[in-house]
Amino acid sequence: MYLEKINSPADVKKLSGEEMKALAQEMRAALIKKLSVHGGHCGPNLGMVEAVIALHYVFNSPEDKFVFDVSHQTYCHKMLTGRSAAFLDESKYNDVTGYSTQHESAHDHFTIGHTSTSVSLAAGLAKGRDLRGGHENIVAVIGDGSLSGGEALEGLDYAYELGTNLIIIVNDNGMSIAENHGGLYTNLKLLRDTDGRAECNLFKAMGLDYTFVKDGNDIESLIAAFSAVKDSAKPVVVHIVTEKGRGYAPAVADKESWHWHVPFDAETGKPRHEWDGEDYGDLTAQYLLAKMKKDPTVAAVTSGTPTVFGFWKSRREEAGSQFIDVGIAEEHAVALCSGISANGGKPVYGVYSSFIQRTYDQLSQDLCINNNPVTILTFAASVYGMTDITHLGIFDIPMMSNIPNLVYLAPATYEEYIAMLDWSMEQREHPVAIRVPGAVVHGEKPTKDYGVLNKYEVLQQGSDIAVIALGAFRGLGAEAAKLIEQQTGVKPTLIDPVYITGIDEQLLDSLKSDHRAVITLEDGILDGGFGEKIARFYGDSDVKTVNLGLKKQFLDCYDPAEVLRDCGLTTEQIAQRAVQLIS
Amino acid sequence: MYLEKINSPADVKKLSGEEMKALAQEMRAALIKKLSVHGGHCGPNLGMVEAVIALHYVFNSPEDKFVFDVSHQTYCHKMLTGRSAAFLDESKYNDVTGYSTQHESAHDHFTIGHTSTSVSLAAGLAKGRDLRGGHENIVAVIGDGSLSGGEALEGLDYAYELGTNLIIIVNDNGMSIAENHGGLYTNLKLLRDTDGRAECNLFKAMGLDYTFVKDGNDIESLIAAFSAVKDSAKPVVVHIVTEKGRGYAPAVADKESWHWHVPFDAETGKPRHEWDGEDYGDLTAQYLLAKMKKDPTVAAVTSGTPTVFGFWKSRREEAGSQFIDVGIAEEHAVALCSGISANGGKPVYGVYSSFIQRTYDQLSQDLCINNNPVTILTFAASVYGMTDITHLGIFDIPMMSNIPNLVYLAPATYEEYIAMLDWSMEQREHPVAIRVPGAVVHGEKPTKDYGVLNKYEVLQQGSDIAVIALGAFRGLGAEAAKLIEQQTGVKPTLIDPVYITGIDEQLLDSLKSDHRAVITLEDGILDGGFGEKIARFYGDSDVKTVNLGLKKQFLDCYDPAEVLRDCGLTTEQIAQRAVQLIS
Repeated sequence: MYLEKINSPADVKKLSGEEMKALAQEMRAALIKKLSVHGGHCGPNLGMVEAVIALHYVFNSPEDKFVFDVSHQTYCHKMLTGRSAAFLDESKYNDVTGYSTQHESAHDHFTIGHTSTSVSLAAGLAKGRDLRGGHENIVAVIGDGSLSGGEALEGLDYAYELGTNLIIIVNDNGMSIAENHGGLYTNLKLLRDTDGRAECNLFKAMGLDYTFVKDGNDIESLIAAFSAVKDSAKPVVVHIVTEKGRGYAPAVADKESWHWHVPFDAETGKPRHEWDGEDYGDLTAQYLLAKMKKDPTVAAVTSGTPTVFGFWKSRREEAGSQFIDVGIAEEHAVALCSGISANGGKPVYGVYSSFIQRTYDQLSQDLCINNNPVTILTFAASVYGMTDITHLGIFDIPMMSNIPNLVYLAPATYEEYIAMLDWSMEQREHPVAIRVPGAVVHGEKPTKDYGVLNKYEVLQQGSDIAVIALGAFRGLGAEAAKLIEQQTGVKPTLIDPVYITGIDEQLLDSLKSDHRAVITLEDGILDGGFGEKIARFYGDSDVKTVNLGLKKQFLDCYDPAEVLRDCGLTTEQIAQRAVQLIS
Repeated sequence: MYLEKINSPADVKKLSGEEMKALAQEMRAALIKKLSVHGGHCGPNLGMVEAVIALHYVFNSPEDKFVFDVSHQTYCHKMLTGRSAAFLDESKYNDVTGYSTQHESAHDHFTIGHTSTSVSLAAGLAKGRDLRGGHENIVAVIGDGSLSGGEALEGLDYAYELGTNLIIIVNDNGMSIAENHGGLYTNLKLLRDTDGRAECNLFKAMGLDYTFVKDGNDIESLIAAFSAVKDSAKPVVVHIVTEKGRGYAPAVADKESWHWHVPFDAETGKPRHEWDGEDYGDLTAQYLLAKMKKDPTVAAVTSGTPTVFGFWKSRREEAGSQFIDVGIAEEHAVALCSGISANGGKPVYGVYSSFIQRTYDQLSQDLCINNNPVTILTFAASVYGMTDITHLGIFDIPMMSNIPNLVYLAPATYEEYIAMLDWSMEQREHPVAIRVPGAVVHGEKPTKDYGVLNKYEVLQQGSDIAVIALGAFRGLGAEAAKLIEQQTGVKPTLIDPVYITGIDEQLLDSLKSDHRAVITLEDGILDGGFGEKIARFYGDSDVKTVNLGLKKQFLDCYDPAEVLRDCGLTTEQIAQRAVQLIS
């Protein structure tokens, strides 16, 4: 076996062509085995095996520096840079993260998880090299849908300006997470169809040199192409055509489902565990499809992650032109929605909390200044969301809720969520975002008019102390209130604020007469968040406030229960804090 | 005179070719006269006179809808859509804003001020039209440097997907605010040089149809080209070549200085008022140029606004490859800086507060997760900054300061600012941003070690009440402290927090023993800002807090003094609040 003997790229360089092919086979087998147990990014890594071997054969990492876009394609790179045990030994599967990180290896230069960043980051490495008079090669690897992101296109446009060594490998597997969207992919197809010879060439139009590798899963061709551009004195694009999912039949057959996959039976490709509970993504698509049938002006918009709100392929087909995938282009998605709304449509944009971060200015300028009625659904916005440092869903409240005009709602139950959607899609006054909870909880059907902004809901009228529990933390607030009553005999007031973006001054004022303290609970960081606004409101009064939520920090690969405990967010800790406040 | 008789586009349609030429002359004269008195965007509007006439001649606004990028090119559009008085009658010059806004006219569809948004917004209008079964033409006008912005490129990429009528006018005047930067401009040049015939074509590579107009200041050619694409059943790009500043010799000769210009003598082009005081932009460039000479790894980075930190042309030449203009591409700029820093460089990114908004995700992901030592200088971050709704500098604190790892500093004096720059550029621990004040104030040279994070400065030790005055509001805080002492006999403690991003827990704790109240002052919106963190800190204590700052709202064309009064931020109001708190 070759793989287990590879301790660094130097060991790759010693291999013959045939040995490298054998290594590729071993790497695929290791990938499939680990992924079947552990889950993770399947298609992207299976397609890149040969390219990564060739990169390490030709270049001298870590002096030469590789920057992998999204870095979900770095499993093979990790295998060849001293981290193979994490792919061969099941007990060590968790020794590496799913992305590149400089804390793990000298061969990784950045912690990366969002798309479309590699060209810009690599251009920076190249400029840094030039400023200090270095001579190493800088290599950016991009593809798998990332090219359509604004930052990637800005980076390609700048690369020409750099004017010195920068090698941009475009990994063209014909796919994003789902199918590719955007006109530039017609050009990639033209280039594939003409073996890279077509004159009309996006990369040349950006002022860059260009070279084409027809079979990006052939190590020899790759080595030849990479050797030819090594030490290039100017920026150059190497367009390689690879097969997503290569070597694992189910992943080749259904590229979208196998982009990222839960643990599966390697033999059959069937998931090890089927989820049969209710899911907000699924429920949202059902709701929107029903709406679309009644109203042709309803449109569902995604930026490359259609399944975030349940639009798998058959549903996209069902929705037809009322479903819009703009490709990975969050900025465009928000501006597009604003435009749709300004011309009579009812757009609903479904997006992960972590990715809505990519569009602050469009939220502010294109949407909120214009005050157009658009509905944004923020998914995985929770400590229980994705736990990778680059995919946290705990920053959306400070990021979005301080933008004027936006109405950001926090439902606690399915029934509330649907009532908010009903209201939001039919009103014409405000841009609205809804923070979709993780787990589906049912409750009573609300009768509330959400158009009367910033009216909080009093779930339980008590005295002395009030618990204001936002969105998905309403259940936690209710449990804490119960425990407080048990421990003190005092029945707390329990409030669901519903609105993240505003203060119910009348209600909060009324609490002053018979409440000594208020505790706020929010599933996100405290800094710039919801609770601080309550603290400001009561700042000059006799009402004491305690804000409970997450700390301002980049968590990574964490245990949510542990984080909550660390932040004083268990039922017992909340009750204890309450007892201190009113005793 | 034709112009004063034009009440709507219908009146343009009645004119002959010769009459339209005469109208163009009148419009230029009106532009130059108003601009000489009022200041504003000169070059962009002078170049677009004929194109706007032709647009209104061919299309039927407001049913057909125009979206102007940045909308600083809409002066001529305003003249032809019932707003000519605001360009002919000096007493009415302020009746229109400098940008498009739907509150002013049915011919404007959005409030726009940031670049690179028009294609996406127009694509949205087109999609909205398609959803409701409409048939009007949708026209986006983009150019003047905006093409390099990620949102614009995302929009162009999506346009192909739309597949229906969308007419994209690319106004190619060979310039951004300064000269253009980026490889795509090599392609525009190639297209100009070949009369649009070159096969290598950025727009075709994006999947779009394309047509070329050699003389974009010739009304007849423009009418022919626009007529040919009117009612197009698919997206099409019309590339028109115009001359920035056309018809006013000084603006043609020095296109950069005349992009936007203060009031001037129309005869000579000389500014009516020369500014001879100290200016932070100028001082920053002087400082950085001196640094660059000593240290070749120092780089100054701009995204299309080099003069924001004093790098006019001669200074850019002096800095050579240590000055980087990435074009209008803020996302790329931040990622580039992170990369430069990761490979041994010392980048300093100078940017307007309003435009740093365009790069939240890059600040978070590319920069702060990676914790690279980059210095960002935020200019015009103040109620005294730009007063247009789209260019406000009052949101950067909530936007940036809640991102983990970032150290955001608020100097009050020139000496502090330079000491912070000295520290920031030499340390290797943190990404740092500095909120550069508006007016230059001098003070003592600090001896502070900024690397000991979150240590506030006590400027005056007092009792009962503390005033915590952030950055440029330190002077206001000092005045208020004086007045409080005069009115109450109590000497307040005066604190300059220096750090926007952290709490000096030890100091704040120590105040609890002999202070009853704390007032915070910040030059930005309160929501998600600095003061709320102080309110949270003291929430469960006996110390009362009052946070003074701006309201969460989109101000427009406002008087700063009035806004401050409305927010309780005059010296007298602050003192009055203090008296209430401690009496």
